[in-house]
Amino acid sequence: MSCEAEEVSVQAEIVTIGTELLLGEIVDTNSAWIAQRLTTIGLNLYYTTTVGDNLGRITQVLKQALERSDVVITTGGLGPTVDDVTREAVAAATERDLVLDPDLLKEITAYFARRNYTMTENNRRQARIPRGAMIIHNPVGTAPAFAVEHKGHVIISLPGVPHEMRYLMENTVLPYLRERFGLTGIIKSRVVHTCGIGESAVDARIGDLMQLSNPTVGTRAHPGQTDIVITAKADSPAEAEALLAPIEAEIRARLGIYVYGVDDQTLADVVNGLLVAKGLRLAVAETLTRGELARTLSGAREGAKALAGSVMLPHAQAAQQVLGIEAEWVAREGFISQAVADAIAEAVRRLYGADLGLAIVGPEDPGAEGAPPTYFSLATEEGIVRGQPRPGRSGVAGMNWLLFLGQDLVRRHLLGAEPN
Amino acid sequence: MSCEAEEVSVQAEIVTIGTELLLGEIVDTNSAWIAQRLTTIGLNLYYTTTVGDNLGRITQVLKQALERSDVVITTGGLGPTVDDVTREAVAAATERDLVLDPDLLKEITAYFARRNYTMTENNRRQARIPRGAMIIHNPVGTAPAFAVEHKGHVIISLPGVPHEMRYLMENTVLPYLRERFGLTGIIKSRVVHTCGIGESAVDARIGDLMQLSNPTVGTRAHPGQTDIVITAKADSPAEAEALLAPIEAEIRARLGIYVYGVDDQTLADVVNGLLVAKGLRLAVAETLTRGELARTLSGAREGAKALAGSVMLPHAQAAQQVLGIEAEWVAREGFISQAVADAIAEAVRRLYGADLGLAIVGPEDPGAEGAPPTYFSLATEEGIVRGQPRPGRSGVAGMNWLLFLGQDLVRRHLLGAEPN
Repeated sequence: MSCEAEEVSVQAEIVTIGTELLLGEIVDTNSAWIAQRLTTIGLNLYYTTTVGDNLGRITQVLKQALERSDVVITTGGLGPTVDDVTREAVAAATERDLVLDPDLLKEITAYFARRNYTMTENNRRQARIPRGAMIIHNPVGTAPAFAVEHKGHVIISLPGVPHEMRYLMENTVLPYLRERFGLTGIIKSRVVHTCGIGESAVDARIGDLMQLSNPTVGTRAHPGQTDIVITAKADSPAEAEALLAPIEAEIRARLGIYVYGVDDQTLADVVNGLLVAKGLRLAVAETLTRGELARTLSGAREGAKALAGSVMLPHAQAAQQVLGIEAEWVAREGFISQAVADAIAEAVRRLYGADLGLAIVGPEDPGAEGAPPTYFSLATEEGIVRGQPRPGRSGVAGMNWLLFLGQDLVRRHLLGAEPN
Repeated sequence: MSCEAEEVSVQAEIVTIGTELLLGEIVDTNSAWIAQRLTTIGLNLYYTTTVGDNLGRITQVLKQALERSDVVITTGGLGPTVDDVTREAVAAATERDLVLDPDLLKEITAYFARRNYTMTENNRRQARIPRGAMIIHNPVGTAPAFAVEHKGHVIISLPGVPHEMRYLMENTVLPYLRERFGLTGIIKSRVVHTCGIGESAVDARIGDLMQLSNPTVGTRAHPGQTDIVITAKADSPAEAEALLAPIEAEIRARLGIYVYGVDDQTLADVVNGLLVAKGLRLAVAETLTRGELARTLSGAREGAKALAGSVMLPHAQAAQQVLGIEAEWVAREGFISQAVADAIAEAVRRLYGADLGLAIVGPEDPGAEGAPPTYFSLATEEGIVRGQPRPGRSGVAGMNWLLFLGQDLVRRHLLGAEPN
């Protein structure tokens, strides 16, 4: 049975509808999200098309899509106003008329009643769907979604509002497509996150694993971190997990301390988790990173528990005012120096009565010609732990890289490893 | 002449090429950017299509696009590797062969030589273009771009790398399209930013202006701010400006203090600009907003000059440790209260020796059931200025709304206006 299932090749395409997309007022993020979810059930996506709120053009695009693809997923154009014509276009493309669905009308009426909203004649329009369509119940909004079978192909119309679309995809559309096309196989990925090691060094250690065919192994480089993606095809989640687990273990064994987490774990989650597990609290002082590090740590799970507080010190004067670090001494050492980073780390630890104090001290534009490096210092009860001074890079990528290095200094200390 | 130009309706479409887009690994931001730029020269965009790195499918999509649109712009698939087949697809769709262009080869060779990179046989492939194509010189990368005329339609192939694509669009493609299609008209927009006033209140004051046909006036609501977009069509930038200016002036007159800036000015830019102009420095203390406010202010133009420093105070203990605010008194007043916000604002002003001290004090999840409101306080040399306590909302939108309110309290004070 499983062999048969693997031979099925079902082709899908996405049609996103909305003039605001063609004016460039919003970026289409729905397509990439739907694309990712379709790969998990083994559907092949061949095309995505964007078209404006024009009945004739939408109808033409849908007709063509239904001819060349097994599954067509539309987003947008299901609202109450007259320029929302997806319902009409699907009816035209599948050669049927629109009918008022009494159950749908009841559902929409109840939605408005529950919220004490006034229902208009236009909202009633939303209960009109192509004859014979299957209703996809939408408990998270008013735009009803539906699916229409047409000559062995299926067209599914979803709202454009991302949270509604995502809810309906996860809860109704993906299970329905698996059932409808007998897609017994599943695709499951695991992302192993590393930091403090470059993509080529990762390649050198696990390059042979990239030759595997199931699971496959690949890398993706980001500023400050390299992700390793393991992807397995199997007949069940348990079988997929059995394929993934040994490869994940092998990668962890080869990369050791460089691996900080998997999937949706962030480095901030890991650092905060370690702090909470050990009952420790961290205080942070930042110069060039402008509060980004504290924000990253406090925004993560358990961030509020593990972070004692933070200060932003744009210049030496602020370090004297807030931390009592003598301006004359700072002038002698240089504000951007290891000695000042050490002093700030210890002072911020004491200020907040925290167990650990982390300081990142660097220039305003770390990527500028001749800019000094950035200094990392972690004050502990046993003394100072120093990260390597780092030459900087400009922009968002450079900022992310520094944030990773700062957090990784804390992570390595909490795990008893040497600084990187 | 200008009448003639206005009657021209040139239809464009975009084809983005790359399997990574169909796997959902990256979001297509190029299309929205190109769409925006095309509107400025009066081109109508009717479709965008995304297709994977498959020669047959790309060719089919391009053939259809050339039939139904005057201008087809492709992005992606111009790299050196074998899966980059845009060159081949354009040649097939326009019924011609690929030829090696000696000038292009020289250009690519020179690019590699300048950077001391090794040039491979694959890089030579990049010098092969459809016979008769016009080369679009690419000084910012190695992927050559080109345009092909085909039966009165034109197809323009650009690299997918955003900064290369944008450079070529601005410097070559847009001027070329204006010339090629005799587009003498231009479209120019101005965005007027307001804060502290809702979209419906804006509508009530300027609703009549939304009936205009040139310029047109519309609104866009965001959390904490409402934008008003004025769009003019004219034959020259000066004529467009002459249409925009009086409407902008009228909107400013009707909305007064609610207007904080235009176009790419942010509220942080405006606040920092006012601080620098008056020679004042601001210190910031935040609880729930977790350093976001200081980050926003310091990331803006002139932010480094105007911001004395900031502290993040996750709990009452931190307020005692850093600002010396007595814990017993805080316990009596309640950490989240106007009195504590006032005390923190004054204390952070003194700590940094700043002219102004801004405090935002609120609950961890302002959108939670029964959560207390958020308190805003601005300490000045003449005393405390208070924003209205605000019930909160959850998530990113709620956070942005609070950041706007905090910054607007400072802006209004600096302009001598009442708090909102």
